[in-house]
Amino acid sequence: MARILRLNMAEKSYVWEEVKAPYAGLGGRAMTSRLIRQEVSPTCHPLSAANKLVLAPGLLTGATVASSGRISVGGKSPLTGGIKESNSGGLLSQKLARLGVQAVVVEGRPDDGEFSVVRLTKDGVEFFPATEYAGLGNYETMARLWERFGKGVGVMSIGQAGEKRLTTASIHFADPWGRPGRAAGRGGLGALMGSKKLKALVVDDKGAPPVPLARSEEFKLAAHKWAKILLAHPISGQALPTYGTAVLINIVNEAGALPTQNFRRGRFEFAEDLSGERMAELIKQRGGKTKEGCHPGCVIQCSQTYHDAAGNYLTSGFEYESIWAMGANTLIRNLDEVALMDRLCDDFGLDTIEWGVTLGVLMEGGVIPWGDGPAAIAMLKKVPTDDVWGRIVGNGSAFTGQALGVDRIPAVKRQGLPAYDPRAEKGIGLTYATSPMGGDHTAGYTVATNILGCGGQANPLVKGGNLKLSHDLQVATAAIDSTGLCLFTAFAVLDNPEALPCIVDMINARYGLALTADDVVSLGQAVLRDEVSFNRDAGFTTAQDRLPDFFQEKLPPHNTTWDFSPEEIDQMWKGL
Amino acid sequence: MARILRLNMAEKSYVWEEVKAPYAGLGGRAMTSRLIRQEVSPTCHPLSAANKLVLAPGLLTGATVASSGRISVGGKSPLTGGIKESNSGGLLSQKLARLGVQAVVVEGRPDDGEFSVVRLTKDGVEFFPATEYAGLGNYETMARLWERFGKGVGVMSIGQAGEKRLTTASIHFADPWGRPGRAAGRGGLGALMGSKKLKALVVDDKGAPPVPLARSEEFKLAAHKWAKILLAHPISGQALPTYGTAVLINIVNEAGALPTQNFRRGRFEFAEDLSGERMAELIKQRGGKTKEGCHPGCVIQCSQTYHDAAGNYLTSGFEYESIWAMGANTLIRNLDEVALMDRLCDDFGLDTIEWGVTLGVLMEGGVIPWGDGPAAIAMLKKVPTDDVWGRIVGNGSAFTGQALGVDRIPAVKRQGLPAYDPRAEKGIGLTYATSPMGGDHTAGYTVATNILGCGGQANPLVKGGNLKLSHDLQVATAAIDSTGLCLFTAFAVLDNPEALPCIVDMINARYGLALTADDVVSLGQAVLRDEVSFNRDAGFTTAQDRLPDFFQEKLPPHNTTWDFSPEEIDQMWKGL
Repeated sequence: MARILRLNMAEKSYVWEEVKAPYAGLGGRAMTSRLIRQEVSPTCHPLSAANKLVLAPGLLTGATVASSGRISVGGKSPLTGGIKESNSGGLLSQKLARLGVQAVVVEGRPDDGEFSVVRLTKDGVEFFPATEYAGLGNYETMARLWERFGKGVGVMSIGQAGEKRLTTASIHFADPWGRPGRAAGRGGLGALMGSKKLKALVVDDKGAPPVPLARSEEFKLAAHKWAKILLAHPISGQALPTYGTAVLINIVNEAGALPTQNFRRGRFEFAEDLSGERMAELIKQRGGKTKEGCHPGCVIQCSQTYHDAAGNYLTSGFEYESIWAMGANTLIRNLDEVALMDRLCDDFGLDTIEWGVTLGVLMEGGVIPWGDGPAAIAMLKKVPTDDVWGRIVGNGSAFTGQALGVDRIPAVKRQGLPAYDPRAEKGIGLTYATSPMGGDHTAGYTVATNILGCGGQANPLVKGGNLKLSHDLQVATAAIDSTGLCLFTAFAVLDNPEALPCIVDMINARYGLALTADDVVSLGQAVLRDEVSFNRDAGFTTAQDRLPDFFQEKLPPHNTTWDFSPEEIDQMWKGL
Repeated sequence: MARILRLNMAEKSYVWEEVKAPYAGLGGRAMTSRLIRQEVSPTCHPLSAANKLVLAPGLLTGATVASSGRISVGGKSPLTGGIKESNSGGLLSQKLARLGVQAVVVEGRPDDGEFSVVRLTKDGVEFFPATEYAGLGNYETMARLWERFGKGVGVMSIGQAGEKRLTTASIHFADPWGRPGRAAGRGGLGALMGSKKLKALVVDDKGAPPVPLARSEEFKLAAHKWAKILLAHPISGQALPTYGTAVLINIVNEAGALPTQNFRRGRFEFAEDLSGERMAELIKQRGGKTKEGCHPGCVIQCSQTYHDAAGNYLTSGFEYESIWAMGANTLIRNLDEVALMDRLCDDFGLDTIEWGVTLGVLMEGGVIPWGDGPAAIAMLKKVPTDDVWGRIVGNGSAFTGQALGVDRIPAVKRQGLPAYDPRAEKGIGLTYATSPMGGDHTAGYTVATNILGCGGQANPLVKGGNLKLSHDLQVATAAIDSTGLCLFTAFAVLDNPEALPCIVDMINARYGLALTADDVVSLGQAVLRDEVSFNRDAGFTTAQDRLPDFFQEKLPPHNTTWDFSPEEIDQMWKGL
């Protein structure tokens, strides 16, 4: 029987709650967004006791379904001031699901200021003082928690950035090797966790039974088919396992949509040095490993272990967006420098995309020279120290821009824009502008169609068709994010007409339901309604659904501009 | 013939423009807000070339009318992101009016990054490189400009804070002694001026004729009566000239509405040490001077020269709100420490109220101990230096709170709240919440009625009547701010039924019109319509018309809370 676990951080107590309306039947992002919409005042201060941090495994998480181990983390974002769902892999989600936990809600705020570790097992919930972990990075925190509570337990933790309540702090999840390379990165949910004084949540599912299946045989058939569908698609079956997401560096650069030097150009002449092909080559030379999954049962396996030149472990979960942000965006072309920053961000618990966008703003303001990797690394290392620069840069691109008086800030709703220039990938520009998450690519990944050619063809350089594309993908993604399936399953879903029915079959067989594909669309719409209405009540209007004015400059090499009118953009959520 | 002067800072050029619709007949705040509403994109970045800085003397400024020399400064606020009118005394406004300049519009932004000084005389406009002034504070800047361009010229300048585009930077105006004690303090318009690379504007009205009077005799009679009305009122005729605005310290403390220790209590046990009575006593002992006017022809003369213990000039224009902010709010009880910070803020060009509220947040976050004046002064001194703390604190209370992860931030629309606790002065709470300026007291100074008993009686501790009071005063103030009359004339206007007709008579006689008191109300409403609609298009909703949640705590000694519901607050601009 699935339940909701509520942790009261003020009293270090907890209650179990039956899952009733309006939460019944929800998972992942549908659960986190509904709960925040229902229980969090949209105008509260994100770091006040009134905000809540919510975790929810997806509807399919915990069962034997390929690539279904994602977790949704939600709250009122300390960065954007709007609602936030940030999505991560790692071990914890499947364990929560196996313990029958449909959501964990972290509430209140202790007066004493002491951090806690909370452990959840089949026998119950325990609070421990986190004195010995406070001030540690995620690497050391996870290592010590595995040592104390057993190798292989699920861990969710924050580093020093979250402890300091910096608004670009991320929340990290141990991968199958106990490393923090997996993160709910965006929107500063690590600061929210820090404000709750929760250093780490440990989940151990030892002795838990398998998740119940309403129609077991039907479920197994569908799950088998699902794995085959994923493996058969060239992106999830070949490109991602071979090169990781960094396979996109050369592709997006070729498309002229790789934002270079704080979004001044769409091509970086040294892109090759940062590419997935180059990374795979270095991994091979140095004894790292490609093709790792972030959670058991993932068949896509886009992760990797990246070693330094001396052959020692440097980082993992080394993504395209991170490499772009800290690389092409800043003109830093040394992949090892970028990898070190990726490692440090994971350790301190800082969003890699926001860090890279912030670096661009620091370079814009003349604080760090363009392309200067060592200076960038030195600045990043200030985040966990008492150096007050850390308090500026750890609050992100918009904040750093304000500190420096810089007005060329590529952000929407104060969240730095990711790795696709909206002038050469117009669909993603609409997603950036209108997603309730702020400047975000995963919320409606039009790149899949516009640049990768999945689900049809659309021209990324012109407006036509992109409004519908972004809209439909935002709705579909809200649904996918509620299932616990990795977003990278979407390539197959877009191309293979059997994929979506297969997902519906799995959900139906798991819960004994009779949903149709239309119900999945309805679910996505319901999620977005919760999110858009929360933001409206938090004080957002369509005036915030805008890209910065400088996107009206021409972007080489295609020399296109951002030319959607406000009226066109504002069609997005009409009739939602 | 009155004209609009447009300065193009990108090309260092200017044009004169005839005043036509929609600007004809407007002065002061009516002019600045109309111009911004018409010409500035509400969604532009406040520091981008698209924003404009607008100056406008009031409708009565320049003529011989008591206390009519105020200037309105407007723009999209770098602090709040909404529209801003900030109002100042000083010499410049009357000189602009005598030169027939109804508004100065500072536009564009130079690429070369060099600061300019612009001088306006009856013979024309000149641009000078500001190389020798860049990096100087306002005291030295004004002294050098008087030396160069003549003692007694009008000067408007920014200090280092404005040059750095810190979003709480103020714009300063030379008083009759060439000191920068007069400021358009709130909303960071100094950062806007800094972004335009305008270090100073010098206005010399030598040789200019008197302002034309359509009906001269009628005007003189009304103006004579006006001066008598002001002098006959106990506040403008006695209290303000004798003690300055700091006369309010004891009064507001007695009322239990003096926010103490970052808005925790309504009484400060050492208020007496900071009082106007104490200040007057020290001024007498040390050879300073009370009863100075910020511009020629002011009969209220609320300003003063405050000397240090050694008898040397320390500061001037030393106001109640500044003393409260840096004093009771921070538990600093040494008036000389507060006076030194007042002096430094004037010199660096930083809003004194925001600085005091920011100090409260710094103390809340443990960066400076409560009541530690020397530490506060040391922090303030970092603003003009390369110390990066200056870039945090110079961006104000909300920004500093985000840097520190502090959530007890007394601000509305990111502007720190002034010197009256909204739980013990509920009318002003409504003004804070709903003024398009953000947390501001001058926009609808209900204190006049609630605590000072002008214009009737209302209980500041209960809700009843305060919505209408705040509304009517906000409308009236928008009109007063358009005449160039000092807000301190409002006490007499509230109490003396002959005062408003007298103002209308002066405007009619000056311009040959036949306005009625109703037209003045309509003007105020029109100003607010421009402002509220600009903010709406900038993305503000009623969700930003809220006080921070912590005002639901009880405030000693009256133990009242902020208990207006959102629905009650949202009546304010219904039907505007």
